[in-house]
Amino acid sequence: MRRTASLPIFLAERGTRTLQDQIYRCIRQSIVDGLVGAERRLPSTRALAADLGVSRTTALLALEQLRAEGYIVARRGSGMFIAPQLPERVPRGVVPLGNLVSRPPFSRRGAHLARTRAPDRRKSLTGPCAFRLGTPALDLFPWRIWSQITRECLRALKPSQLDYSQLAGLRHLRDAVAEQVQLRGTRCDADQVQVVMGAQRGLDLIAHMLLDPDDSARMEDPGYTGARGALASAGANVVSVPVDAEGMIIDASLGGDARLAYVTPSCQFPLGIAMSLPRRHQLLEWARRSHAWIIEDDYDCDTHYRTQPLPCLHALDPDGRVIYVGTFSKSLFPALRLGFLIVPRDLQSGFNTARLATDLHPPVLDQMVLAAFISRGHYARHVRRMQTVYAERLDTLQRAIDRSGAPLRLRPVQSGMHAVVDVMGVCAERLHGEAAALGVESMPLSAYYFGASHRPNALLLGFGCVTPAAIRVGVARLARAIESARAVI
Amino acid sequence: MRRTASLPIFLAERGTRTLQDQIYRCIRQSIVDGLVGAERRLPSTRALAADLGVSRTTALLALEQLRAEGYIVARRGSGMFIAPQLPERVPRGVVPLGNLVSRPPFSRRGAHLARTRAPDRRKSLTGPCAFRLGTPALDLFPWRIWSQITRECLRALKPSQLDYSQLAGLRHLRDAVAEQVQLRGTRCDADQVQVVMGAQRGLDLIAHMLLDPDDSARMEDPGYTGARGALASAGANVVSVPVDAEGMIIDASLGGDARLAYVTPSCQFPLGIAMSLPRRHQLLEWARRSHAWIIEDDYDCDTHYRTQPLPCLHALDPDGRVIYVGTFSKSLFPALRLGFLIVPRDLQSGFNTARLATDLHPPVLDQMVLAAFISRGHYARHVRRMQTVYAERLDTLQRAIDRSGAPLRLRPVQSGMHAVVDVMGVCAERLHGEAAALGVESMPLSAYYFGASHRPNALLLGFGCVTPAAIRVGVARLARAIESARAVI
Repeated sequence: MRRTASLPIFLAERGTRTLQDQIYRCIRQSIVDGLVGAERRLPSTRALAADLGVSRTTALLALEQLRAEGYIVARRGSGMFIAPQLPERVPRGVVPLGNLVSRPPFSRRGAHLARTRAPDRRKSLTGPCAFRLGTPALDLFPWRIWSQITRECLRALKPSQLDYSQLAGLRHLRDAVAEQVQLRGTRCDADQVQVVMGAQRGLDLIAHMLLDPDDSARMEDPGYTGARGALASAGANVVSVPVDAEGMIIDASLGGDARLAYVTPSCQFPLGIAMSLPRRHQLLEWARRSHAWIIEDDYDCDTHYRTQPLPCLHALDPDGRVIYVGTFSKSLFPALRLGFLIVPRDLQSGFNTARLATDLHPPVLDQMVLAAFISRGHYARHVRRMQTVYAERLDTLQRAIDRSGAPLRLRPVQSGMHAVVDVMGVCAERLHGEAAALGVESMPLSAYYFGASHRPNALLLGFGCVTPAAIRVGVARLARAIESARAVI
Repeated sequence: MRRTASLPIFLAERGTRTLQDQIYRCIRQSIVDGLVGAERRLPSTRALAADLGVSRTTALLALEQLRAEGYIVARRGSGMFIAPQLPERVPRGVVPLGNLVSRPPFSRRGAHLARTRAPDRRKSLTGPCAFRLGTPALDLFPWRIWSQITRECLRALKPSQLDYSQLAGLRHLRDAVAEQVQLRGTRCDADQVQVVMGAQRGLDLIAHMLLDPDDSARMEDPGYTGARGALASAGANVVSVPVDAEGMIIDASLGGDARLAYVTPSCQFPLGIAMSLPRRHQLLEWARRSHAWIIEDDYDCDTHYRTQPLPCLHALDPDGRVIYVGTFSKSLFPALRLGFLIVPRDLQSGFNTARLATDLHPPVLDQMVLAAFISRGHYARHVRRMQTVYAERLDTLQRAIDRSGAPLRLRPVQSGMHAVVDVMGVCAERLHGEAAALGVESMPLSAYYFGASHRPNALLLGFGCVTPAAIRVGVARLARAIESARAVI
């Protein structure tokens, strides 16, 4: 610890802050706290440097920062002084913390939101590891290209582009998005695109635009907890609908009173199966009869194993009742926080206006970079490359499980970045815990069931972000975790 | 128009797309539409180039992009062929658009959101001009420094940082934000910060966490339409409370049934006055008695003219009932779309969970750049520099109005980036229209009144993003617009 007599400056020898930064902060705090009075003269940089045992440059730069921010002023020939008018002369409103009991609680909706049941996968602050769900192959993302485009956009951006922008998203990006979605077999154009700050934001926006409290919504069971959270936060009564090998079951038990149904037809979450074409038509027919909206969440429409992709629901819908939700979190990377909606043409202006009260538009620079990334063909190239990578990773997972001899059976995977693995002889939830203790992430399939239906004894294993070597290590650890889980019994 | 006989390629001589891009798109569309069958051989690049009258390189690059994306394959020694397995083999679901009548309307809440009353300033896609509201001095933003930090972050970012991240925002950024807010006279730390995708998103989140449908909320009148929209979209019954020279009037008519009050104490929007210290204490006392929350929107707390800033409400609140809302749209630039909340410590985990169902976290790279920008002192320097710039621009506006002899009276401005200008002898709304016809933006003050109170005949003139020269031109045009508005009568 070093200090100066003339000012209360204490410097830590070790720490993340530079000496210059520490000096700057100590002096600033002294001024803000009123420990040194206005217009008082500061020691010279030479004296300060000698007192503190730092270089004169360090002392000079610290004082220069204080000067630039207005805490001190230079007077010709006589040195530095505390400024007569400080940039913040805000008296500190130090009041004792009173009785918290007098504060109201969350709203009913807020309390519900605060209890949202959701896997804690986003809590993890470590890098991707076996077998994280929902994270793509970050190690293979073409970050160099992304960085290059970002640098170009930084150079090209004009000051006027730092202002507020189009609510639905940049026109260039909406054009590029519409073109991509058309490859899913449907027709849409830029005027139907709402670029949103991630698909979750889009789901929340849709839920609030289409559902009033106590409206009934249908949702796949098992299903995506994030979507269920968005529907429930809008106050909807969410009714679980079982899923079979063709997708959400459409029969008389589905009822006719729903305002909306949420489905993941390309890659049912979490089962990874594609909704059959007849089922798609049945769903649309049901929605027409029931006067209901459909949310089609196409979160992972780009990977398919040994199956032919079918046209998306949006493509089969003659009524404009399907709202398509897309995300770049799976095809590119989650930290980008960009997704989009395709909304019926006549609803676009209502959505635009709604965004004034909810979120406005996503960051402009990010949108520019993404638009260029797509329109220069990098998006299509990357998605295609990942298709091969994920097929290899899935294959590695299958073979590692086979070789391990562990009582695990991998169900056939049609699409997506995770596998459903049935667990024999051990409780999957217990195995999940034992695996976590060995540093292996997984999710019990049961976490995604909401209705009273039978909950399979299975784990979800993500392989998107896991290298083949890490997959093999992960499976070996999983086999060990099975032994531990058995031993506990 | 150029075309080739062997493939349906039509090239426009003029247009924004390069020849290479046009060739790529034409061939891709032909393949997707099934106009050229699988495994058909393509013409050589030499033949294609000759047919189309383009260079071989252009033809080659177009084909290379198709190959990289999997539409065509190269066979050694025999040229390029349409791929046997196309990247999208999605049959086009062409269905006629049916009867839209069978579709449900927006929810009641959605219909309300779709009608949100809001100024259309964000529609404008031209650069900033006199006298745009709410836009800071974009021409003086240190974009070079911002770009430099962004380039550093692009280089430093590790693949694992492309994954999902902390829901409340990056720790570094929350530290930096808490330190800034402390300069407003209050105590808070990183564990109370929620980094949100713009203050509007934060307002919407708070409204949903704290208000149930039909709950009563108090709101300044005149007041910020965006906040009113957020409260109303949560289903709240928004009650207007008049504002006097000390801020929102706290008296018996305020009632005791409110769940929440929304205020802008540093810089009342749109009047630009600061709430007096006694009024701040009255408001807190009322909230304590009424068991109500307070939202303190400190959207423009950094500029003050000839006045001393007061401690923020958050600093005076012993109960933890004030939720502080901050934005970087005014202090930095709106296109960034980052803001933050300071929430009571015991509510933080509820807010975190709520974000799983509403939006997750803001983009990671943007957060990294902002954190570095603040912690290296650029934020404080910029804000301080702008204080001087805005004072000059305000002075220029005052003098230009004085000199013009126009029947306009500028009210004293205490803080913020716009002035309230009383209009004499002409209807301010008419003047607003005439000025717009001359390319001058403005807003009638009446647009921000909601109650039955007297609506002053005044305009809001933003000067934050307007250079002194543009201010003088703008005032001259405004004077002309007054003549036109008079002539119409």
